[in-house]
Amino acid sequence: MKEKTFQSIQEIGFTSLIDKIKTYGGNRRKEISKGIGDDASVQLVDETEAVLTSSEIFLEGVHFDLTYHPLHHLGYKIVTAAVSDVYAMNGEPVQILTDIAIPNKYSVEMIEQFYRGVDAACKDYNCVLAGGDTTASHQFLAISVTVVGFAKSEKIIYRNGAGKDDAICVTGDLGGALAGLRILMREKEYWKSNEEQYFQPDLQGYEYVVKRQLVPAARMDFIKVLKSANLKPTALIDLSQGLLADCKQVAVQSGWGVELFSPAVPISMETRKVADEMKEDVDKYAFYGGEDFEMLFTLKKEDVERLAANFDDFAVIGRMTENKSEFRINTGEGESIEIDI
Amino acid sequence: MKEKTFQSIQEIGFTSLIDKIKTYGGNRRKEISKGIGDDASVQLVDETEAVLTSSEIFLEGVHFDLTYHPLHHLGYKIVTAAVSDVYAMNGEPVQILTDIAIPNKYSVEMIEQFYRGVDAACKDYNCVLAGGDTTASHQFLAISVTVVGFAKSEKIIYRNGAGKDDAICVTGDLGGALAGLRILMREKEYWKSNEEQYFQPDLQGYEYVVKRQLVPAARMDFIKVLKSANLKPTALIDLSQGLLADCKQVAVQSGWGVELFSPAVPISMETRKVADEMKEDVDKYAFYGGEDFEMLFTLKKEDVERLAANFDDFAVIGRMTENKSEFRINTGEGESIEIDI
Repeated sequence: MKEKTFQSIQEIGFTSLIDKIKTYGGNRRKEISKGIGDDASVQLVDETEAVLTSSEIFLEGVHFDLTYHPLHHLGYKIVTAAVSDVYAMNGEPVQILTDIAIPNKYSVEMIEQFYRGVDAACKDYNCVLAGGDTTASHQFLAISVTVVGFAKSEKIIYRNGAGKDDAICVTGDLGGALAGLRILMREKEYWKSNEEQYFQPDLQGYEYVVKRQLVPAARMDFIKVLKSANLKPTALIDLSQGLLADCKQVAVQSGWGVELFSPAVPISMETRKVADEMKEDVDKYAFYGGEDFEMLFTLKKEDVERLAANFDDFAVIGRMTENKSEFRINTGEGESIEIDI
Repeated sequence: MKEKTFQSIQEIGFTSLIDKIKTYGGNRRKEISKGIGDDASVQLVDETEAVLTSSEIFLEGVHFDLTYHPLHHLGYKIVTAAVSDVYAMNGEPVQILTDIAIPNKYSVEMIEQFYRGVDAACKDYNCVLAGGDTTASHQFLAISVTVVGFAKSEKIIYRNGAGKDDAICVTGDLGGALAGLRILMREKEYWKSNEEQYFQPDLQGYEYVVKRQLVPAARMDFIKVLKSANLKPTALIDLSQGLLADCKQVAVQSGWGVELFSPAVPISMETRKVADEMKEDVDKYAFYGGEDFEMLFTLKKEDVERLAANFDDFAVIGRMTENKSEFRINTGEGESIEIDI
């Protein structure tokens, strides 16, 4: 027998796995102008219209913990994650398909709660729950969500369009979702060590960050501003993996380096408070924390003021540099740190 | 505290759960002309073009058993299941998105095998693997697959279009996938009771039914025939849940009764052989066995001969009747059985 080597996925990482998977795209069609590698795939309908599609899977115990994540909120959050990928192409989400694999321990009422959350999000983002699958599972809930949207082909914004010296910008503030998770996990530990029957977490004073974790909002408003102001960022991605990981995607795909100014990265007071309590560096929350679902985008320098005249919830946090291999963070104390990501 | 009643999903069944979910479609958009309830959802692009979408989830130990299901075949099969839903709307699949949640025990090579299967199916069905998500899982593999296709709006065939006295037809032969599963499970039992290190199932003489279970083919050929012969069935569904369950969908949604002639239901010799060996009624395989991925369709009586002139791999197995609540099977022995499904 031929000897086989076992290479674990943990060894190569999911990013490398995706790179491998890309190489299996053995079949091509002219309709698919963008496949794996951006927030959503792009399927051309004709010369002007395109369909955008994206799909994600969420597992109980890996991506969410039902001890502190109400099913209603979870339903809302997975729709947010889905539509955010269409907004990150400068498109408009139209329909949502949810697959759900349900263990015996879940009641009909619990699953209805989940769908109430999906429904609420569909209303907020003007989407329709148009399909999906329900089936049995082992002891864990598994949920997959697909979004289908539209965009005018010329309006689509990819990750690879950033130009040299373009301003790197983000909407909202960063690190809040991770700060919320830290608080929820602390409360869960307290609950476990005290063995109280009913879990009543004390979240007073942490409402903002907990909401960022449990029911984040996708930036539909930002896409509307771009449309009304007739502005087009050169690159766009949603902040789902964390600022550095997502910014790296833009840098690598666009072929430029990155210089960030860490004091410019917007962080909420509550996020700072949580980092202080946890005795952690708040910059790490902002740089590595995922699931904020804010938009990271690059703008030609001359467009920054035009956007600022129409929209006040964004910050310029850096610029694209000529040195392709560079990923640099300048701190407020005058330090300049080269990051290897 | 308010007392809550626990209603299990097993109690109401997944079909009733889907009926409940349908009622949460609180948001509507004119683009979505068909949502939950057919093989795929229909999103209108303009007056003539539509996008078709469908999504399904598969769990290790629930939907597949890797003891006898090679990952390469599994990759092929999930694409078959997906594109079959688009063919069942008389559409053309264009892209596939796969989400995969992977436990530690899987190697990179195993996941590559899965994607090789996906890729092979994409080539056969002329689709593109255009996206999806890879993530970690607990001890079980979870796979979701979404298909996106196109159709001319006027060509789309729904489940609800069957007319009174229309002929009920199926492509290919039925029950083979279940017969294959029976054989594979028997071999697994043998393997377990003998504790051999290497599992070498003896499948000689069962190649056809095992293939029906492990690598079924979607009926792309039938859709091509409809196009070239300019024929349009009145209703169309793919046989994924089993003949009776899927036929019931057509009957209920179209608002007519059903009369089937059981001797006319096509069954392969190998399927008959398996049923004999298992001491089971082969009609049960054909009526209740799922995953054959054949097409069930209804034709106006005058179209039956026209189709037969162009295509020889189908059979007329019954007709739609006036009595809406009727679901009758006439046997070869002159019996007439009213089925409650």
